[in-house]
Amino acid sequence: MSANATSLPLAITTGEPAGIGPDLTLMLAASGQLPEGCVAIGDPALLRQRAQQLGLDVPVVECAPGEPLSMAQATLPVWPVALAAPVTPGVLDSANAAYVIKTLEVAVAACQQGLAAAMVTAPLHKGVIIEGGFSGFTGHTEWLRDACGVPEVVMMLATDVALHARGPEWQGERGLRVALATTHLPLRDVADAITPERLTRVTRLLDADLRGQFGIAAPRIAVCGLNPHAGEGGHLGFEERDIIEPTLTTLRAQGIDVRGPYPADTLFTPRHLREVDAVLAMYHDQGLAVLKYAGFGQAANITLGLPLVRTSVDHGTALDLAGRGTADPGSLGVALRLARQLSQRQKTNER
Amino acid sequence: MSANATSLPLAITTGEPAGIGPDLTLMLAASGQLPEGCVAIGDPALLRQRAQQLGLDVPVVECAPGEPLSMAQATLPVWPVALAAPVTPGVLDSANAAYVIKTLEVAVAACQQGLAAAMVTAPLHKGVIIEGGFSGFTGHTEWLRDACGVPEVVMMLATDVALHARGPEWQGERGLRVALATTHLPLRDVADAITPERLTRVTRLLDADLRGQFGIAAPRIAVCGLNPHAGEGGHLGFEERDIIEPTLTTLRAQGIDVRGPYPADTLFTPRHLREVDAVLAMYHDQGLAVLKYAGFGQAANITLGLPLVRTSVDHGTALDLAGRGTADPGSLGVALRLARQLSQRQKTNER
Repeated sequence: MSANATSLPLAITTGEPAGIGPDLTLMLAASGQLPEGCVAIGDPALLRQRAQQLGLDVPVVECAPGEPLSMAQATLPVWPVALAAPVTPGVLDSANAAYVIKTLEVAVAACQQGLAAAMVTAPLHKGVIIEGGFSGFTGHTEWLRDACGVPEVVMMLATDVALHARGPEWQGERGLRVALATTHLPLRDVADAITPERLTRVTRLLDADLRGQFGIAAPRIAVCGLNPHAGEGGHLGFEERDIIEPTLTTLRAQGIDVRGPYPADTLFTPRHLREVDAVLAMYHDQGLAVLKYAGFGQAANITLGLPLVRTSVDHGTALDLAGRGTADPGSLGVALRLARQLSQRQKTNER
Repeated sequence: MSANATSLPLAITTGEPAGIGPDLTLMLAASGQLPEGCVAIGDPALLRQRAQQLGLDVPVVECAPGEPLSMAQATLPVWPVALAAPVTPGVLDSANAAYVIKTLEVAVAACQQGLAAAMVTAPLHKGVIIEGGFSGFTGHTEWLRDACGVPEVVMMLATDVALHARGPEWQGERGLRVALATTHLPLRDVADAITPERLTRVTRLLDADLRGQFGIAAPRIAVCGLNPHAGEGGHLGFEERDIIEPTLTTLRAQGIDVRGPYPADTLFTPRHLREVDAVLAMYHDQGLAVLKYAGFGQAANITLGLPLVRTSVDHGTALDLAGRGTADPGSLGVALRLARQLSQRQKTNER
């Protein structure tokens, strides 16, 4: 690979080796759906074994960051990272936790050194990472925040038709962009995590990246309440009145078009959605149940606020489907297309 | 109205007088979409005034429970309850809180005395009811539980195509039945409210009413986890491991087909939904954001566990639309059709 920025690869971390990450990558390669210039990060022997299990004829070609990628059709270039223990599809082994983390480190380094355009992550399994010795691990998103040394990142998911800039497709009933004010917290810890400081940082990042990454000149953000019916005037919770509303008022005065807080159960309807460019949910299941209902298999996860472009699938490791060939590579395809778009836009912005 | 049970009326409580409840009732009457045998409960002068504001020619005919209903086309029979203060559409007045409660009392009494087949509720505004002196009021559902003297009720919402018995239409992507383990609680109180006792009562009621009210011989219930990713094996919360899983194991041993707990953000996808008859969400926004996205305007609310049939619209008072004629009466129509079906099934069961 030359240093020509127009052809930098998209680095795919293949994730939990017992899950469907290797499968999805191989399936896209075998069917010619892997966008040009992709490289997998993982164990080449694992990928060859999985290809055989899936009955896929995909030559796995090892190379190193900075080297040219194989351009042959239906091959899969791989930046190798060695497994610590052999893998049976569907069977977790905490001995490989450090392997999964290492694939992330290789991807981050390549992005930071200008050897990859973006990183695209297949799913990992949080529990086995923690059991493998990474006790503070709570997810890709938080790990990337710390690895990149930034104070805050924002997790956003978007359905395929909402990945691009504002337009008629966004107003379709299946177009949704949902960002989260909190991510992987036990539900009982969510209310205390909704502070003016966090809401301000998250909303500012979302506004900035809707402008910078998505090219929306004047982003309109709808904010969910924390409580049912957005607190119903203080009768079902005080956080809207005491925390969310005053914070939004301040942000509005600073020129951010932030609306709400709205009751989450009626916000996700065409009447409201067609008026905004993104929804900010207060917590994981409030925003993601509807997002995945609307776009499952055709949605992707974007981490906003990083100094690199990172997208991801919208699903988990699906251990029961690994090695079977029945997993749906749709979301990985969406995440790859989005990563290419965002990295090209980032390049344009830098000029 | 004769005592003939086949023609007992459906009693519509018209709800918050400054909201769209009166409007929706009049709009259905004017367009001939009010099912046969409906009677509104509310202030006749208010209804006449609102009809005039909406430009609708709907004669409002006063009568009393037990009397025959007017059968003339496009009239609206009303069981009168007097307002305490005049009403401006869109303007709340706590002086009328007792009026709203009285309409509910009239409906419950009519159902209990065999003078109504079912009650169908238009939206009220919790805040103004509380301000009007009903300090413990948390919603229709909980008020009806106490008024009927039952220990537990379950709030379920269903999209129109999922209102009826199991069948191909349920497997359509827009068919959803969602019941809630908790309803109108501040988010910070939800985790402590998920107890084995509550889960057991709610799941049993849901199972019993899916059989008795919906005619599903062997209901299959999918249960959401409380935490993101259903706690991810204890790493994102302990309630699944310590409370939900053991409770479901016990219920299964008692013959209830209850599955999960599943991560809420991936449960609402065709692969999972087509395997079950209803979803039990742990709290309001976890279940209702996706339900209303899927079926807004064509969904209804059913209270399970009452000794009477009660359905409701799936939306709020929409104060900004009152008196304008732009509100959508779709959900009230669905709630009325469902109430008629459920009351007819109840009669069949009683024979």
